[in-house]
Amino acid sequence: MSFDIKPIGRVESELTDPAQAPMQGSEGAPDAWLIFEPAVLEGLDGLRPGAQVIVLTWLDRARRDVLRVHPRDDSANPMQGVFTTRSQDRPNPIGLHPVEILSIDGARVRVRSLEAVDGTPIVDVKPVLRA
Amino acid sequence: MSFDIKPIGRVESELTDPAQAPMQGSEGAPDAWLIFEPAVLEGLDGLRPGAQVIVLTWLDRARRDVLRVHPRDDSANPMQGVFTTRSQDRPNPIGLHPVEILSIDGARVRVRSLEAVDGTPIVDVKPVLRA
Repeated sequence: MSFDIKPIGRVESELTDPAQAPMQGSEGAPDAWLIFEPAVLEGLDGLRPGAQVIVLTWLDRARRDVLRVHPRDDSANPMQGVFTTRSQDRPNPIGLHPVEILSIDGARVRVRSLEAVDGTPIVDVKPVLRA
Repeated sequence: MSFDIKPIGRVESELTDPAQAPMQGSEGAPDAWLIFEPAVLEGLDGLRPGAQVIVLTWLDRARRDVLRVHPRDDSANPMQGVFTTRSQDRPNPIGLHPVEILSIDGARVRVRSLEAVDGTPIVDVKPVLRA
């Protein structure tokens, strides 16, 4: 059994080398653009600058056959199961990126501090829920 | 372009009727089991009771051709783009469920307050990051 996940857009970023990208947005990642497919634009209705959202990406450079890793790629950290880490290497390499919306220009949405590299496929956007 | 997402397990829950399921875990959802595939068990190494995690599911009953909805299925709420809501209906129906791990018994992991219905495919588990 498997399901077909279709990108709804892609990240446009000055980050092009995965080895140089921060591991989390809060670790010095640059602002970036989300470029959406024209077919899904209606799904952005109501999105506003200042909104806190979670961008979901498909980390297409990740290894999917890895189940244990050294957290933060540091061999000094004991190996752990990938489901206890945010490693991009995992069976279904979905990235979760909490970001703030800075501006919206049609299909181009500017966001703050995104660690995903240029070209990364976007698969969903959700609002952050307040408890 | 599309990607193939493979379930790593499924939800086992007393919730069987989607119409009766709470919309969010904090709205009275029952505790539930996550049943993992034997092939991915190594990925759970280091998971402990008390951990706060995000369970990612594939909401296989969702409609994927919907881009605007009445939030919370309430027609009194004006239509909004799905990417500004947590509607399950969206192009890639990935559910995000923040839960606490209650206990672990091999491939069976008990979690608190999960609103996903019985049989929902699980696609990933990630730790909640503290800022």
